[in-house]
Amino acid sequence: MNTRHHEERLTDIARLIRYYILKATTHAGSGHPTSSLSATELMTALVFGGIFRYDPNNPDHPNNDRIIFSKGHASPLYYAIWAAAGRLSEEDILTYRQFGSSLEGHPTPAFRYVDAATGSLGQGLSIGVGMAINAKYLDKLPYRTYVLLGDSEMAEGSQWEAIQIAAHYKLDNLIGILDVNRLGQRGETMYGHDLEAYGKRIRSFGWKTLLVDGHSISEVRAALMEIDERSDRPIMIIAKTIKGKGVSFVEDQNGFHGKALSEEDLDKALKALGNVDTSLRGEIKAPEDIRPPSMESGSAGRIDYTGEESVPTRNAYGNALNRIYARFPRIVSIDGEVSNSTRAAYFKKEHSERFFEMYIAEQNMAGVALGLSCRGKIPFASSFAAFLSRACDQIRMSQYSDADIKFVGSHGGVSIGQDGPSQMGLEDLAFFRTLFGSIVLYPCDAVSTERLVEEAAAYRGIAYIRTTRMATPILYDADESFPIGGSKVLKQSDSDAATVIAAGVTVHEALEAWQTLQESGVSIRVIDLYSVKPVDVDTLKRAAAETDHLITVEDHSAQGGLADAVREALTLEAVRLHALAVRKKPKSGKPRELLEFEEISGKAIVEKVKELVDG
Amino acid sequence: MNTRHHEERLTDIARLIRYYILKATTHAGSGHPTSSLSATELMTALVFGGIFRYDPNNPDHPNNDRIIFSKGHASPLYYAIWAAAGRLSEEDILTYRQFGSSLEGHPTPAFRYVDAATGSLGQGLSIGVGMAINAKYLDKLPYRTYVLLGDSEMAEGSQWEAIQIAAHYKLDNLIGILDVNRLGQRGETMYGHDLEAYGKRIRSFGWKTLLVDGHSISEVRAALMEIDERSDRPIMIIAKTIKGKGVSFVEDQNGFHGKALSEEDLDKALKALGNVDTSLRGEIKAPEDIRPPSMESGSAGRIDYTGEESVPTRNAYGNALNRIYARFPRIVSIDGEVSNSTRAAYFKKEHSERFFEMYIAEQNMAGVALGLSCRGKIPFASSFAAFLSRACDQIRMSQYSDADIKFVGSHGGVSIGQDGPSQMGLEDLAFFRTLFGSIVLYPCDAVSTERLVEEAAAYRGIAYIRTTRMATPILYDADESFPIGGSKVLKQSDSDAATVIAAGVTVHEALEAWQTLQESGVSIRVIDLYSVKPVDVDTLKRAAAETDHLITVEDHSAQGGLADAVREALTLEAVRLHALAVRKKPKSGKPRELLEFEEISGKAIVEKVKELVDG
Repeated sequence: MNTRHHEERLTDIARLIRYYILKATTHAGSGHPTSSLSATELMTALVFGGIFRYDPNNPDHPNNDRIIFSKGHASPLYYAIWAAAGRLSEEDILTYRQFGSSLEGHPTPAFRYVDAATGSLGQGLSIGVGMAINAKYLDKLPYRTYVLLGDSEMAEGSQWEAIQIAAHYKLDNLIGILDVNRLGQRGETMYGHDLEAYGKRIRSFGWKTLLVDGHSISEVRAALMEIDERSDRPIMIIAKTIKGKGVSFVEDQNGFHGKALSEEDLDKALKALGNVDTSLRGEIKAPEDIRPPSMESGSAGRIDYTGEESVPTRNAYGNALNRIYARFPRIVSIDGEVSNSTRAAYFKKEHSERFFEMYIAEQNMAGVALGLSCRGKIPFASSFAAFLSRACDQIRMSQYSDADIKFVGSHGGVSIGQDGPSQMGLEDLAFFRTLFGSIVLYPCDAVSTERLVEEAAAYRGIAYIRTTRMATPILYDADESFPIGGSKVLKQSDSDAATVIAAGVTVHEALEAWQTLQESGVSIRVIDLYSVKPVDVDTLKRAAAETDHLITVEDHSAQGGLADAVREALTLEAVRLHALAVRKKPKSGKPRELLEFEEISGKAIVEKVKELVDG
Repeated sequence: MNTRHHEERLTDIARLIRYYILKATTHAGSGHPTSSLSATELMTALVFGGIFRYDPNNPDHPNNDRIIFSKGHASPLYYAIWAAAGRLSEEDILTYRQFGSSLEGHPTPAFRYVDAATGSLGQGLSIGVGMAINAKYLDKLPYRTYVLLGDSEMAEGSQWEAIQIAAHYKLDNLIGILDVNRLGQRGETMYGHDLEAYGKRIRSFGWKTLLVDGHSISEVRAALMEIDERSDRPIMIIAKTIKGKGVSFVEDQNGFHGKALSEEDLDKALKALGNVDTSLRGEIKAPEDIRPPSMESGSAGRIDYTGEESVPTRNAYGNALNRIYARFPRIVSIDGEVSNSTRAAYFKKEHSERFFEMYIAEQNMAGVALGLSCRGKIPFASSFAAFLSRACDQIRMSQYSDADIKFVGSHGGVSIGQDGPSQMGLEDLAFFRTLFGSIVLYPCDAVSTERLVEEAAAYRGIAYIRTTRMATPILYDADESFPIGGSKVLKQSDSDAATVIAAGVTVHEALEAWQTLQESGVSIRVIDLYSVKPVDVDTLKRAAAETDHLITVEDHSAQGGLADAVREALTLEAVRLHALAVRKKPKSGKPRELLEFEEISGKAIVEKVKELVDG
């Protein structure tokens, strides 16, 4: 087929795609048709123009090119593409946004050709960075990652994090396609149709840019074909487009964002589209059938802290990555410029090819983790617990992608000391508890940390591990097991006056309190609730039944953490619970001073127990 | 004093400042001296070189220039500056990082010359944007805002959000001073000492840049004095510096980030510094004594929804801003490109000079809110509840600045419908509950929304208001009051079988359930828990005492929201609580379908009550 004939065919396919976009959204009564119409030629040229390489019969083929719709609200376009490819019928398309349909309002992996859920703007490029890093440095495959971007979402700083990192890692296998349709949700964007405004900014960060008429299939194809040269630079195709293109009465007009056409207007629009050949099908070029080298997995090494008394759990994290890597060769470690603090540096030292510095850009780090997860890796993404909160929206979104990501937050709590509150994670347990299917782990010693890092790696889903800055005594034998959802009863007797439930740093405070109280003839039960989610309901119920008072003590906000988790577990048990937690705005000071100030120290526990037992 | 003499004096002051930096950190045994030393000439030239204008006797003077240390870990430098200004003694300086000292590890407003707490990198420029917007567009004063930036933190996307917005708003009264010392925490930054790498990027975004030798006081002064021309462009002074400058054995070397010198090394360093005249004092130029026009406050208008049956609470939010503005003329509305959805657009229409579009850049929006709050405004920052999670780190940090900010998250819950989970706020109540002194409000109708927006404006601190997308029936009379920490008992009798505690959209589900149950002869108590934090403990206790079953129902994650808040309030009451919440990963669908799917509908409540009453 000659080029002109080919491009006429692509034009017909684009018409068919517009047909599907309009029908889907009008039938749903909602959606973003104008945002989908502006990118129609871009995607048509890419997917059906012989550039995109994908085997629809094998969505998981490791060498498939990837597409991410960072502008997730253009989902009607994405589904229309697959209908034009013959993978969805018109009937399927008309289930758009219906309850139970895989064609959701914004793309989710419910639809087999979606890798990662999008819809919260400004996140797709980071996901693409993760997939491109995987291709270039891990799987070492030639597949490309294409990210469809909207212009409004370029205001999101996360995009510029991705842009910087992509250039730094020379990701010439990452292609952004920027749909500059001028109009945001409530008006014109900052730069309107000034393509060069985007061009000069993106070029200044080291990308190659190509400016095109986004509705000229031949220009778009030509730009995409220019990408064949390897240049060590990521590529941004910057396309001038018209929002609502193809429906003249909404083209380039404000006020039509997120509005489906009425039935009447749909009729008008379809008539104006002209002849739509619904039997038309686009061809997608197949990928090269190359696969990455298979990874043999072996066994994890043995835990050995012989001769050591106190070790920071953050050190144990770094040690654990090295120890378990043979068992989980899909592990990748990424960190936000603090690997010497989080101890991800231990792993970087032994397996530098499996470690990627993410610099001070946590949002991008979370997106990269998702991209790596989509490509079958097990990312361990670490920073200070406090700074993971920079990525809450990305982490929130990753729960809708069936992501398999392990987040590790070091420097939990006030007990970090003199650096003060800006560095203290105090809300992290609360946030990670809210995520569907997440597990939240807060080990108190090196041995349990090592075991739980291994459990987290084996767990399929989002895991959060909180580590501690200071050294804490080793409590457990190297061969003890720490199942998710379990706990450890460290002290118990037949006459426990109260139960103290702690995790992480406060376990040691509780043990100190136990000692002090023993000397007064008072026994307490001490539970190490290392699994904050899910919690060990049975052990907690037993403690509630067998002891008169329950006390939680946590180096965390009073809301959302241990106390809330225990109350949730015992919600049908009608128990009283006394919660010691960080209730006062913390400040600089020595760790011990701060634990006392916040009344979560051994001393505070003793006082609370005495108050309850005596009163 | 001639220039050369003046600059020699500044050199002596810089020496004194180095003396304080080294002594403070060694005495504390921790801190970031090398990061402070690299910016010493920069700050000396600025503060004492006749450029910075500030009255130390009046830190709140409205026309003072402002300084923000975005690289908050250079706090030793900040305190040393004020010691050199005669506002701290050496004895004060030696309390650095001690518990109870106002000189914390990272700056907080505990120290009178700090406006906003910093220390989580990449946030200072946004705070500066807020202060500069205030100067240029609100107070209309000539003061300037200077932000000291580190090079590593330029990887943070939030900085690029600020850079874009600053250029867009022509903030030529905002001066960034970028300390390019080449070394991050664990190694070299992406661009090392390549000043032009920063220069071209920042210029591409529309700033003016000046490249200087950061240790040449004369070059730095000359650059700062060039700023006198008004250019409609923000200015970035990009300075080549040496990390650890002034202590030869650590200068420009990796491995010394965040390390205080030992006593022995301190001796060496101080000797090498040479003669330090600790009696030396730097002069700070006074500001022009101009004040903004005083704002007269009047009364809020009357609430009037006569003739309306159902109104979305998000509409009531927009109406409320207009209604209460006369009472709170310090209100400023900022929104993240969704004002037509959040209805901040209603206020923009009436008071366009008090509204600032923040585009799709929520991190920057939260920082701007903090900057505005520091300058005495009452910012209402709105977006979808889900997208406020983009700014969790900034919001977390604002709690350490005694910030007075109102965050408004629309589109809470699964009940937004077909757009699907990317747009659904499901974790927002949990996050805002964790903040010190925060109030969390979730009104169910237009009247209560109007009242609570007013209460939030009057409250001094961080407030979060969650609004709903769909229209909901008006339940309350226009003259009812809704105190913070209160609740409304909508239905009660002497024979309530159970209490249903709801908020927002689920209040209406609960009322529907009440009706259905009445028809079966079962009475339930219905509580509108519009104040999720603090909660109405007395009403909840009474309900626990007087009814056999407590049920919470929320369009929110099962963790961290209503259920946890009620359990926290009743933690000493030994009650059972049944929690209906969003427990299944949501999807697209009609609002009604999703409420049923998540079992938080009227029907689900009826079933739960029957199960408890019968079983």
